[in-house]
Amino acid sequence: MTVTITAFERSPDGGAGLARDTRVRWALEEAGQHYEVRLVSFKAMKEPAHVALHPFGQIPTYEEDDLALFETGAIVFHIAERHAGLLPDDANARDRAIAWMFAAVNTVEPPILDLVIAKIVEGDKPWAKDRLPLVMDRIRERLKQLSARLGDAEWLEGGFSAGDLMMVSVLLRLKPSGLLNEFPNLAAYVARGETRPAYKRAFDAQLAVFTGNPPPGR
Amino acid sequence: MTVTITAFERSPDGGAGLARDTRVRWALEEAGQHYEVRLVSFKAMKEPAHVALHPFGQIPTYEEDDLALFETGAIVFHIAERHAGLLPDDANARDRAIAWMFAAVNTVEPPILDLVIAKIVEGDKPWAKDRLPLVMDRIRERLKQLSARLGDAEWLEGGFSAGDLMMVSVLLRLKPSGLLNEFPNLAAYVARGETRPAYKRAFDAQLAVFTGNPPPGR
Repeated sequence: MTVTITAFERSPDGGAGLARDTRVRWALEEAGQHYEVRLVSFKAMKEPAHVALHPFGQIPTYEEDDLALFETGAIVFHIAERHAGLLPDDANARDRAIAWMFAAVNTVEPPILDLVIAKIVEGDKPWAKDRLPLVMDRIRERLKQLSARLGDAEWLEGGFSAGDLMMVSVLLRLKPSGLLNEFPNLAAYVARGETRPAYKRAFDAQLAVFTGNPPPGR
Repeated sequence: MTVTITAFERSPDGGAGLARDTRVRWALEEAGQHYEVRLVSFKAMKEPAHVALHPFGQIPTYEEDDLALFETGAIVFHIAERHAGLLPDDANARDRAIAWMFAAVNTVEPPILDLVIAKIVEGDKPWAKDRLPLVMDRIRERLKQLSARLGDAEWLEGGFSAGDLMMVSVLLRLKPSGLLNEFPNLAAYVARGETRPAYKRAFDAQLAVFTGNPPPGR
């Protein structure tokens, strides 16, 4: 079985690990799975060969034998279903972990993506300065709720799961904003994710693409 | 087995079926499952009893014996995994259907939610009029890609699946905007979803809550 994922040839985040291939790399590292990476340029991402793999012309994609997948959440779930360590065995606990995966991408990430739009895509618009506090407050609302639920627990639902992998990955986008530090338990939660050896390997691997210095042995 | 979901006591969409309980009702109807509905007010949604079920104080929630779930995508997936008709048997086809579920909520829905923000939440802001075309164009970009992928197929990936259920539900939000009509194959795709008997039963049931006229026999 050979797993091949795609990643940016040159990540727009400068190797900060925020591109979505990091989430898939992390899941593969947690699962102890070897994988190959095919780098794609911004131009190639919109061309027919890549769009056949990813209808929205994005990264990452995932190829394994005759399976071709797109959409990070679905790829992480595919990996989590087939390997130990990312989903609990108990049926109810498994469903709850899946609920956190969806909560990460459908409830917590949208207001955070709006911050990317407000700062980068619309950063030069006349409304940028006045609109920013509204966007920040919508994120605060979600963080407040998430912080209340997490409390002083280590992970969202018992042991570490694919739900935490997705939620930590989504929250990592907030680092430059300073918003995370308003909720110390969430900042600590994200830091716990970052100290996992599998995350570190995933982060280093994506950074190596950016610096052009792949770690020895890869 | 008793299934109980929560829904708005009075939906802010006036019974248009856009609240997320419709997605769960639809999945339950496709699966032929009976369910009970507990209505919650906007005030009660933010109180501890409901927040214990839904950390973000939203609807729907799903209770079945000792399982309590939140997050629409996860609830639909739970139903789809346990009943015929919403996920293919073939492993690769099943993974692809799950990819479309995630694509619906993480790739297609965020720019559509931004339209709700632009029109309703920020509709009275000085930038509302100038910003709207940018928001609309970001939606068009996604619709163009989705339209190209769908082509003249009936559903996104072989037969109707939970991926279509989620994607049609997300696209339904665009009806008032007129955007859907710019892509006739997507408008026809959504219409196909709406003509499914299970969707009609789900729609009628949520409308009955709004009008206060539950259909006979419920």
